Amino acid sequence: MNYRLTIQYDGTDFHGWQVQAMGLRTVQGELQRALLVLECKETIVHGAGRTDAGVHAIAQVANVNLGREFASGKLLSALNGNLPPDVRVIEVERVGDDFHARFSARGKSYIYRIFNAPFRSPLWGRYAHWNARPLDLERMRRAAALFLGAHDWTPFSSAQTDVTGSRVRTVMQLEIEERLVEHGRLITISISADGFLRYMVRSIAGTLIAVGLGAIDERQIIWALETLDRTLAGATAPACGLTLARVHYEKP
Amino acid sequence: MNYRLTIQYDGTDFHGWQVQAMGLRTVQGELQRALLVLECKETIVHGAGRTDAGVHAIAQVANVNLGREFASGKLLSALNGNLPPDVRVIEVERVGDDFHARFSARGKSYIYRIFNAPFRSPLWGRYAHWNARPLDLERMRRAAALFLGAHDWTPFSSAQTDVTGSRVRTVMQLEIEERLVEHGRLITISISADGFLRYMVRSIAGTLIAVGLGAIDERQIIWALETLDRTLAGATAPACGLTLARVHYEKP
Repeated sequence: MNYRLTIQYDGTDFHGWQVQAMGLRTVQGELQRALLVLECKETIVHGAGRTDAGVHAIAQVANVNLGREFASGKLLSALNGNLPPDVRVIEVERVGDDFHARFSARGKSYIYRIFNAPFRSPLWGRYAHWNARPLDLERMRRAAALFLGAHDWTPFSSAQTDVTGSRVRTVMQLEIEERLVEHGRLITISISADGFLRYMVRSIAGTLIAVGLGAIDERQIIWALETLDRTLAGATAPACGLTLARVHYEKP
Repeated sequence: MNYRLTIQYDGTDFHGWQVQAMGLRTVQGELQRALLVLECKETIVHGAGRTDAGVHAIAQVANVNLGREFASGKLLSALNGNLPPDVRVIEVERVGDDFHARFSARGKSYIYRIFNAPFRSPLWGRYAHWNARPLDLERMRRAAALFLGAHDWTPFSSAQTDVTGSRVRTVMQLEIEERLVEHGRLITISISADGFLRYMVRSIAGTLIAVGLGAIDERQIIWALETLDRTLAGATAPACGLTLARVHYEKP
């Protein structure tokens, strides 16, 4: 019996999604431990994407094959009863055997939050990267348009990668919104693509921040995408600002 | 030299605003400890309101008398350099000697957040009270109107109080908004008044939640406000959902 799980987590105290060497706390590890109580045997939870240490999720998706049939509500309660408070299964659905959270996915949406104010906010600090100097949003928005469409993302991804095939991915949406909050502003970068390389969102976010500060201009981004030269990209922005918002099983 | 400080904090790991018996961590205590580095003597930070354990603040206000003159930006940086990450001074302003954060205040605004979904959210749980059963927002909004205006708030406040005078306060605004989030909704109660008794916002929030669940009706609220009978109010809602949003020095 194949079940699709939708999972929300605060990534602050996790070493990412994927099970790691002994002793490191991961989201997949916590889910598999919770399932152990139900199944009495090791069960692999297949996630749609392996979020890195410190990255949050509003709605990560995973699937799991269980030996028994469960009512969705029962499975949800049983899992949540065995999970720590920083991870929750928010939806359970019985799906066909051909559904695989990772291989069936057609795309993902992420948000990257920046808290732009002279002080590091105690209230936004957990879910937003702090940037003290004022960011020029218009510059950032013009630059964001350059990232739309199909590109080889080599310059905007980790040098350490297990991708052996094409590094071309298509970005369908890249929007930058701001919301004024007490003595600062919260800038949210929303990005959807048919797939992402490792560190891709954080590298794009870091580059857009450098653009907002005037350190990188549009020509440098065009040049990076043409030459695939990694040194032309901005710094990879910190994990705390990143949240996996949605996994698409139809084209986004 | 009198300085007005605007302060933001995540109340989760604090035993409230006010300095307590040895060993308990408080916001006022942390600020006074940070000032000790600058002043080399005990300095009292006067807060506009004593938030309880677990209550957050977007913009608490305090004033402090210092023996030396500081540029506002210097004082802000110096204080923040000596504060833990869950409390930050977000603004410093030199003010006249007659300014007192508490006695000069003309009112306050609070928000109370409820996360209404079948699961406790790892992402909202820190700043919102979780309620699993669906709340009837229309019922809550109708009931909220009953709280507007001047009332004796004895039934909607703590039995333990140091208020010896009038318990009449005037509520100027009480609004309930909702925002749909992944698999749930975030309900925000915004309330402004010329003053609040202890537990007043949490008692009103708890009563409105009971109304939303159908456990308390409008007549019971009218009756509570008329008879001042504490047993007619709903339970005091948990501290985590409460945030001090603003202190008003003009009439709100």
